[in-house]
Amino acid sequence: MRIEIICTGDEVLTGKITNTNFSYMAQKLEDVGLSVHWGTTVGDDRESLLAAFLLAGTRADAVIVNGGLGPTVDDLSQEIAAQAAGVELVLHQEWLTTMESFFTRRMRTMPPNNVKQAMLPATAEMIDNPIGTACGFALDIGKARFFFTPGVPRELRRMLEEQVIPRILARAGAPASIFLKRFHSYGLGESHVDQLLLGVEALDPDGGVKLGFRAHYPQLETKLTVRGTDMEDVHRKLAPVTDEVRKRLGNFIFAEDDKTLEGVTLAALAERNATLTVVETFTAGQIAARIAHLPGAEKVFRHGTVARHLDRLFGVPLPAELDQDTTEAVTKAARELTGASHALAVLIELDEGADRIDLGGTIWIGIATADQIEFRRSRILGGREWVRLGAVELALDCLRRFLQGLPVVERIDFEKT
Amino acid sequence: MRIEIICTGDEVLTGKITNTNFSYMAQKLEDVGLSVHWGTTVGDDRESLLAAFLLAGTRADAVIVNGGLGPTVDDLSQEIAAQAAGVELVLHQEWLTTMESFFTRRMRTMPPNNVKQAMLPATAEMIDNPIGTACGFALDIGKARFFFTPGVPRELRRMLEEQVIPRILARAGAPASIFLKRFHSYGLGESHVDQLLLGVEALDPDGGVKLGFRAHYPQLETKLTVRGTDMEDVHRKLAPVTDEVRKRLGNFIFAEDDKTLEGVTLAALAERNATLTVVETFTAGQIAARIAHLPGAEKVFRHGTVARHLDRLFGVPLPAELDQDTTEAVTKAARELTGASHALAVLIELDEGADRIDLGGTIWIGIATADQIEFRRSRILGGREWVRLGAVELALDCLRRFLQGLPVVERIDFEKT
Repeated sequence: MRIEIICTGDEVLTGKITNTNFSYMAQKLEDVGLSVHWGTTVGDDRESLLAAFLLAGTRADAVIVNGGLGPTVDDLSQEIAAQAAGVELVLHQEWLTTMESFFTRRMRTMPPNNVKQAMLPATAEMIDNPIGTACGFALDIGKARFFFTPGVPRELRRMLEEQVIPRILARAGAPASIFLKRFHSYGLGESHVDQLLLGVEALDPDGGVKLGFRAHYPQLETKLTVRGTDMEDVHRKLAPVTDEVRKRLGNFIFAEDDKTLEGVTLAALAERNATLTVVETFTAGQIAARIAHLPGAEKVFRHGTVARHLDRLFGVPLPAELDQDTTEAVTKAARELTGASHALAVLIELDEGADRIDLGGTIWIGIATADQIEFRRSRILGGREWVRLGAVELALDCLRRFLQGLPVVERIDFEKT
Repeated sequence: MRIEIICTGDEVLTGKITNTNFSYMAQKLEDVGLSVHWGTTVGDDRESLLAAFLLAGTRADAVIVNGGLGPTVDDLSQEIAAQAAGVELVLHQEWLTTMESFFTRRMRTMPPNNVKQAMLPATAEMIDNPIGTACGFALDIGKARFFFTPGVPRELRRMLEEQVIPRILARAGAPASIFLKRFHSYGLGESHVDQLLLGVEALDPDGGVKLGFRAHYPQLETKLTVRGTDMEDVHRKLAPVTDEVRKRLGNFIFAEDDKTLEGVTLAALAERNATLTVVETFTAGQIAARIAHLPGAEKVFRHGTVARHLDRLFGVPLPAELDQDTTEAVTKAARELTGASHALAVLIELDEGADRIDLGGTIWIGIATADQIEFRRSRILGGREWVRLGAVELALDCLRRFLQGLPVVERIDFEKT
C-alpha cells in the first residue's frame, strides 16, 4: 500500500509555521504498521494544488491531504479536488445543518461564507468533524483514494485517528485489530535498548509483533505494534513480549503508554499525601516547571527554589567545590524550612569556559524525607543545554526511583564516571 | 524564479523527527525576497530520490536538497544526483584532504567509509562546509540548478546563509545587497500592527522595502526586507521606515534583530548592577527558567520562588481573593528577605473548572525596588497554557518597561478588562 501526504497552505510553505502535522500523521501511520512513501508541500495556489493532486493520483493508493478546508477565499481544497476528480461541487445539506446548529449552540449566527465549507465534490464521502466547522471528505482521483483533513491540529488528530486511519487500514486489507504498546525509559540509549531487546519479537511465534523506537533525548520510547484478528488475539500475542520487555529494561522503564515521568512521580507523591520542595541551581526552574503546572500538583508541590551561585542555601554554607555532605545538608534544610515531607535538591557545577560540545557538568542530587536521605552524583557532557536537559531528567527519575523503592544509583548510558 | 526544496531521509519521512529544516530554509529565502514554490519529502530510497530529482528538474529553476550526504550506506544524495545528471561520481581530492585534516586536528584517523563523502558528481561545484565532513555541492539536473546541503541543522544553516542563498540570488539577478531588519513586540496582535504600520513601506519611494510578520504568540516579529544596490543604499532606504516603525509601535517594541525580551531585561539589570528575585505561582518556574539560564545571569539572578496555593508567602497572609495590597506586600517581602535590589512577583488566580478554550486567569504583578513599587493587574482568557504563556510574557515585559522608564500599565490586545 503506497501512501502519500500532501500538506497545503502558504503558512507551511513559507515556513511561517513548522509543519508538525506531517510528522504527526507519519508517526500515526507507522504506529499501525503503514508507511508514508512521499510528502508534498504546496501553497494556497490553484495550479500547484491541481498538479500535486494529479501527480499523487498517478503514484499512490491512498493520499492524505491536510489543510485548505476553511471558509476563506484562500481555502481551495474542495474546489481543486472536484476539478481533479472531474466532478462538480454540490451543497452537502447534512453538513450545512450540522454547521448551523454548531453556531446556534454558541448563540451566534453562521456567517454566509461558512456555506463554502459544506460544498463538497459530487462523488465525495463526507467525513465527520465533531469539533469544528471543516468537515473532511474522501474521493478518488486517478488510482488513489484521497482523504481531505483540516489543518487545525486538534481537529486533524481526531479525524485521522477515528476516521481516516480505519478507512486506510480497511483498504490495505489489514487485520481488524492493531494495537500500539509503549514503554518510556530513561538512562539507556537507543542502540543499547535495541541490543537488550534482541529477539523479543520472536516471543510471538505468529510474527504479529513489531518492535520500534522513538528517541527524544533524554527519554526513549520503545514501541510494540501488534496486529491480530481481534483485540483478544492482540493481547494474547502481546502478553509474553510485554512481560519480557519489562523484565529486560527493568528499573529503567518509568512509565507506559500515555503516562509521563513527571506524572508518575506526582502520582506517587499524591498517593502517600506527600508534599514536595525542590531546590535547583543551573536547571533554572525547569524541574519545578515540569511538575508544578500539572493538574493535582497544587496539593503536592509545596515550594520551589531557583538559585545561582549562592554562597549559602537555606543557611548551609556552600564550599568552593560541592560535596556529598553539603548536598545532603541543603536537601535536609530545604525540607525542614519549607515544611514539606519530601525534598529534592539538584545542584550543578558547570565546567568553565565557553559553551562547546564537550562542555560538562557535575550534578549533585539529594532526596530527603524526615528519616531518609539519598544521594547521587553524576557527570554529563555535551554542552550547556544538554547538561541541563540531562540533569532535569536524571533528578526526576531519581525521585521516581526513590518513591518506587528502587535503587536511586544505577549507572546510565549518558553519564561519564 | 521558481524554487523547490527536497528533504530526504527516513527519519523525516516517518515523522521520527519534525522537519524544522524545511521551515528554516523557507523563511531564510523569504527573508531575502525569494519564495519556495513546492516542497517534497522522500526517504532514503533510490527510486524515490531519483524520481524527486528528475521531477523537480522539469519544474524549477533552483532546487535545494537537504540531507543524505553522510558517510553511511543509506546516504544516497551524491550517487542519485550523479545518476539524475547522467554523470559519474569522481573523487574530489581537495575535499578528501580537508576531511583528513579535520580528523587529524581531532587526533583521530579518518574511517575509510568517510571517503564516500568526497565522491561528487563529475560536473558538480563543491560547496564548502567549514564545520563538518559533509561538503555541499551544486550541479544542473534538467533545467534547474540543484544545491545539495547537509541535514545537520547547524551545518545546513551556515552553508545556506553563506553559500547557497548568495548563489541563488546571483542567478535570480537580484540586487547585490539585501538586508533584513526585525522588530520584536509584545502586546499587539498581527492584524493590529499591520493596521498601525499602514503605508510605512511607501516612505521609501523606490519601493525597496517590504513589510512582513511572523507571529508566535505571545510575541510578534515585524520584518522589513530591504533590497539595494549596496549596503549604503540599503541603509538609506531603511532609515526613514525604521524610524517610523519605532515611532508607531513605540513602547511595545521590546527588542530588535537578534535580541530577546529576557536578554534585554537581563542586560538592563546587569547595567545597573542590580540583582533580581522572582516569585511565581501558576507559571510554575517558567519566568525563572527564561532568565536564570542565560549567560551572565549568575551575577543578577538572586533567587526564584515557585509556589502554589499557599496560605502565606514570605510571611504575608494570602486572602481568599488576591488584591493589590497583598501583591505589593509579597513583592516587597520577597525583595527584602532575599536581599535583591529588584523583585518581580507574578501571582495568578486561575478560573475554576476543567481546561477549556475560554478558561481565564487573573494575573497580579508586582515590581519592587528599595524605594519604588509598581503594580499591574490583567486578565487573559484562552485555556491553562495560553494564560500561562501570556502571564510569563506580560511579567517579563512589565519588568522591561519598568527598567526602561516606560509605563508598566499600557493596555495590550490579549487582555480582557
